[in-house]
Amino acid sequence: MKINEIAQILKEKNNFEILTHNYPDGDCLGCGYGLCLGLQQLGKNARVVTTALPKNFQFLTKGVKEQVFQPEYIISTDVADEKLLGCNQEKYQGKIHMCIDHHKENRVDAVVKYVDSTAAAACEIIYRLLLEMGVTITKEIANCLYTGISTDTGCFRYTNTTADTMRIVAELFEIGCDRDYINKVMFETKSKMRIEIEKEIYETMIFCCDDKCAMIYTTVEMAQRAGDDDLEGIASIPRQIEGVRMGITIREKPDGVYKVSVRTNGDIDACKFCKQFGGGGHVAASGCTIQGTLESVIDKLKKAAEEIL
Amino acid sequence: MKINEIAQILKEKNNFEILTHNYPDGDCLGCGYGLCLGLQQLGKNARVVTTALPKNFQFLTKGVKEQVFQPEYIISTDVADEKLLGCNQEKYQGKIHMCIDHHKENRVDAVVKYVDSTAAAACEIIYRLLLEMGVTITKEIANCLYTGISTDTGCFRYTNTTADTMRIVAELFEIGCDRDYINKVMFETKSKMRIEIEKEIYETMIFCCDDKCAMIYTTVEMAQRAGDDDLEGIASIPRQIEGVRMGITIREKPDGVYKVSVRTNGDIDACKFCKQFGGGGHVAASGCTIQGTLESVIDKLKKAAEEIL
Repeated sequence: MKINEIAQILKEKNNFEILTHNYPDGDCLGCGYGLCLGLQQLGKNARVVTTALPKNFQFLTKGVKEQVFQPEYIISTDVADEKLLGCNQEKYQGKIHMCIDHHKENRVDAVVKYVDSTAAAACEIIYRLLLEMGVTITKEIANCLYTGISTDTGCFRYTNTTADTMRIVAELFEIGCDRDYINKVMFETKSKMRIEIEKEIYETMIFCCDDKCAMIYTTVEMAQRAGDDDLEGIASIPRQIEGVRMGITIREKPDGVYKVSVRTNGDIDACKFCKQFGGGGHVAASGCTIQGTLESVIDKLKKAAEEIL
Repeated sequence: MKINEIAQILKEKNNFEILTHNYPDGDCLGCGYGLCLGLQQLGKNARVVTTALPKNFQFLTKGVKEQVFQPEYIISTDVADEKLLGCNQEKYQGKIHMCIDHHKENRVDAVVKYVDSTAAAACEIIYRLLLEMGVTITKEIANCLYTGISTDTGCFRYTNTTADTMRIVAELFEIGCDRDYINKVMFETKSKMRIEIEKEIYETMIFCCDDKCAMIYTTVEMAQRAGDDDLEGIASIPRQIEGVRMGITIREKPDGVYKVSVRTNGDIDACKFCKQFGGGGHVAASGCTIQGTLESVIDKLKKAAEEIL
């Protein structure tokens, strides 16, 4: 199906519910509220159904009207699999009419599917869709779309960023989206706890293989103290160090098990490395689980690193 | 003068030297080598004159031919003031034919000046200029321009980024610039020393005014050990913390003097704050110098912060 056909369907239907994935991020929430605002602008009833709305994303709901209606048409955005609907899975499984996504492997069972894996963010698809529907991209909609595109591309640093991404964002700038506010909230704000945890993580850093491999670890206590939000993205810390070709992050779990994340620049096969320990993943990012003491886990990883590097 | 007139002059002249500023960054080097490659493509003689070429910028010289010639036409790019030519000032002062820049307050004394302060990076001007000159933007030129634009905008995060910036970068992507390599080198690589210094800086962190103000400091010993490169950008650390409205960085200098950098989100006047101590600057970023012991400097700043916050 083409995007103008998708647009045509949405123009004909009414009373929409838009689903986002569990642990919602900027892209699925940006899609949800951006599309909701667009549908409401066309005089439709619409609402976003999400398992959570973190405080830093609450500005996305600006301008969204709360409407009372019986849902008739269910859309999922940025959801690769119904399993990812979290606590909403049971209610909506098998009842999704339209699935809009950018994940290559999309397993959602929907009547109508529009999956474009060349889009850096699902919000890029929503941008095109809204234009096809004849929606005027307001500042509020632009804020939703910019949030999704900027977060899914690491503020245009990740390899998924394309020329089209940049051109869409140029349009969002001209509409006057609150780019500076969004950048500050999404990319320039660290909690006190994050600073504390980063400091502690730096202290755990071990180098081996002539500094070509760096390892960090977190304990159960650190993980409980910091929480998921403040540990996000730590796996990228060791690989960022100059000269490091393989970065390893070891997370102690409550049951005496260690979860290991391996990151490389793609020149060293992280997947092959992790397969030795029963894990797997991609060439540049893989993981595995190892049992034992912290010391024995580090030892095993060091030996394996020395062989591969 | 218009950009097509500047282009016309360059097409008529030959034997160019292109000057960059002291402590050269991605933008001035990107301008220099990008313009040099463009001029050489048109059959001209050209070279870049720089006080240094840091290792991480050496890829910019790819494709540049070393040519032997007597310089006839001197161009400065991204240089706001002849004083910033460093050790090249004496040789070139008063001898610059053309000045191309994006700094609002440009004080270079040149026969021809083209200053566009709406450009996020001087490399944006060079992009337009090369097109006017009929130069084909090769992958090597695109690498130079992308380096300048991405570094001067903090990879499109800073407030100077415009819709035009994004559109130019879209073109550079389509030419096939080595975006992933450049992003990795410019934005995702930290030295071991930087990690060490960040850890130490986090340990110096002091909060006051109900956590609305955060201060960090560096000692002379830390500054000597780390060097300028590894201390770059530290002034932005305290302001990034959630809830902090004023971030203060105190740098001990060898002569018992403390250099103070103040960063706010623009809602608190950093300039007014610093004027109390004989300093000044902008609303969101200012500085001053205070004499005394570290403790007395912190005390003075705390008192002043309590008054303003």
